[in-house]
Amino acid sequence: MKPKDLGEFGLIAKLQSKLKHRSPQILKSIGDDCSVFKPNKDRHIISTCDALVETVHFELKSTSPEVLGQKAMAVNLSDIAAMGGSPKFALITLGVSPNLPSKFLDKFYSGMNTASKKYGFSIVGGDTVQSPKHFFVNVTLVGEVKKDRWFSREGAKPGDKIFVTGCLGDSALGLKILQSTKKLSVSQKSKKYLISRHLNPTPRIEEAQFLVDSNAQVTAAIDVSDGLIQDLGHILQASEVGAKIDENSVPASPELKKVCKTHKLSKRPLLFSGGEDYELLFTLRPENAKKLVSRFLKRGMPLTEIGEITSPVGEVLLEKENGKVENGSCFKGYNHF
Amino acid sequence: MKPKDLGEFGLIAKLQSKLKHRSPQILKSIGDDCSVFKPNKDRHIISTCDALVETVHFELKSTSPEVLGQKAMAVNLSDIAAMGGSPKFALITLGVSPNLPSKFLDKFYSGMNTASKKYGFSIVGGDTVQSPKHFFVNVTLVGEVKKDRWFSREGAKPGDKIFVTGCLGDSALGLKILQSTKKLSVSQKSKKYLISRHLNPTPRIEEAQFLVDSNAQVTAAIDVSDGLIQDLGHILQASEVGAKIDENSVPASPELKKVCKTHKLSKRPLLFSGGEDYELLFTLRPENAKKLVSRFLKRGMPLTEIGEITSPVGEVLLEKENGKVENGSCFKGYNHF
Repeated sequence: MKPKDLGEFGLIAKLQSKLKHRSPQILKSIGDDCSVFKPNKDRHIISTCDALVETVHFELKSTSPEVLGQKAMAVNLSDIAAMGGSPKFALITLGVSPNLPSKFLDKFYSGMNTASKKYGFSIVGGDTVQSPKHFFVNVTLVGEVKKDRWFSREGAKPGDKIFVTGCLGDSALGLKILQSTKKLSVSQKSKKYLISRHLNPTPRIEEAQFLVDSNAQVTAAIDVSDGLIQDLGHILQASEVGAKIDENSVPASPELKKVCKTHKLSKRPLLFSGGEDYELLFTLRPENAKKLVSRFLKRGMPLTEIGEITSPVGEVLLEKENGKVENGSCFKGYNHF
Repeated sequence: MKPKDLGEFGLIAKLQSKLKHRSPQILKSIGDDCSVFKPNKDRHIISTCDALVETVHFELKSTSPEVLGQKAMAVNLSDIAAMGGSPKFALITLGVSPNLPSKFLDKFYSGMNTASKKYGFSIVGGDTVQSPKHFFVNVTLVGEVKKDRWFSREGAKPGDKIFVTGCLGDSALGLKILQSTKKLSVSQKSKKYLISRHLNPTPRIEEAQFLVDSNAQVTAAIDVSDGLIQDLGHILQASEVGAKIDENSVPASPELKKVCKTHKLSKRPLLFSGGEDYELLFTLRPENAKKLVSRFLKRGMPLTEIGEITSPVGEVLLEKENGKVENGSCFKGYNHF
């Protein structure tokens, strides 16, 4: 059955039946003019939204709808993580072309439902509109932060240590592999890992919560969506500081290292300007750094110190193994136009 | 200059400079991973979203971008009004085709800015993505309601009186005039009024606030976006009741009456299934009805009692002047597919 056979309210009812997560904070969900949410005491409300458009962000033919549904949520969850927040509820706008198979939407909603159960938020409403040519989805995600413990891009100070979770560059390499028309000599296991890092990224909600609860006093934070240098640049701009990155310490996965070595690819553009890794990038007062790393490692969470905040506003220096220093501004990230 | 010349961050910065309204409840706005909002005590958070798509909801050629910006806000403000809420902040997603003149976006944002100043909410964030063919906009609007005084579709009881603000059918007739290829004998004044009711509807935020503050005890409410019978049907379904409408009392504007008379058009489909009037439809205990109407009229706000809630679930009866009764289910509203 296609959307045009089902009608708008039929489609909404069908999609609604897919959505399972319910929270006592949600007083009204899909089925009224607005959703109603009861905030926790001592919390602020945080909000973000991100859209994905067919042919711009994904191709229908080569995309699993479940995975796309999860990714539409993950990119927003990552913004919630970057503020030290907990996701609470989402509103979904779908732009549906009249001939899109409704099976696609079923599976797409299953993917969103998986994310909502995993990260404990509810899908409470949205809008379903016709889109003449291309399918699109917009997710607005609303969360809560503790009043006195939320992160922003502002607040990094010279001397602060810079940290990043996980590994960088995997997502950009995964995309390269997906788009490559040549047969690459990459093991199935590496290929699967790298592609899944691109299509099904893990938002660092748990790590962010750990940072909030640990009292580590994060001074600034962002998620790496447009590439390390560009996103670090946002922290530097907002905090009016600079940074020195120890190039050798920027974490690369064994899979990325292997593929780069085999195919004589440079790791640097992947590590410094590869987007969509959705790792957390944050700064800490140096006195808190050591303790935090060991506590992170105890929980099996990857965390790496990659450099230090400096004074010259906006300047990013890359320090190589041989002690040479290079300006990092050449590593521009993704521009959407 | 076109979006592709400006780049994503240039576009965001340019649009941001248009947005003026600031509130002390907004702790972080555009320029971080999430916006941060400090809720008032004794309030719940309400949320809604609505999208408009080029060629589906409007044509670029025949639409003023300022008015479109205002309408994108108005349809969401109307949902906030239907819950008895105050709008607080909005997130805007724009799907921009690479060749859209940036002047269009400038004016579009001016329109949104006008609405934000008029109704006292802030534009705190969003997403700007490429859209290969058609421009689209999604607005998510978040507001607050008093904990013990918000409206929903649920709660109408047999004997309750049914009220509607303003007039119905104007927007549908305005659209008819816009789309008509024939030369209609409609006065310029009537034409202007009816078209502006379609393109630039007034969300009933003020009226809803008056209802909340008046202690009138609204038992159910909705905004008329898909037509009187269809939207009343949502109240009936949610409240598990029926309704009897006094057909003659359904408010029509002098302009609508005149155009219908001149062109021998039936008023009934316009009044009963014309969408996008964005008037407030609500039910009240009968003992509160009289007092409320006189208080509304004193403030110069149009309000009309149009019928009564009955017991048979989902049944809508239309009572004509001659006492004959007809089933209203034939007046279906707008279906988006």
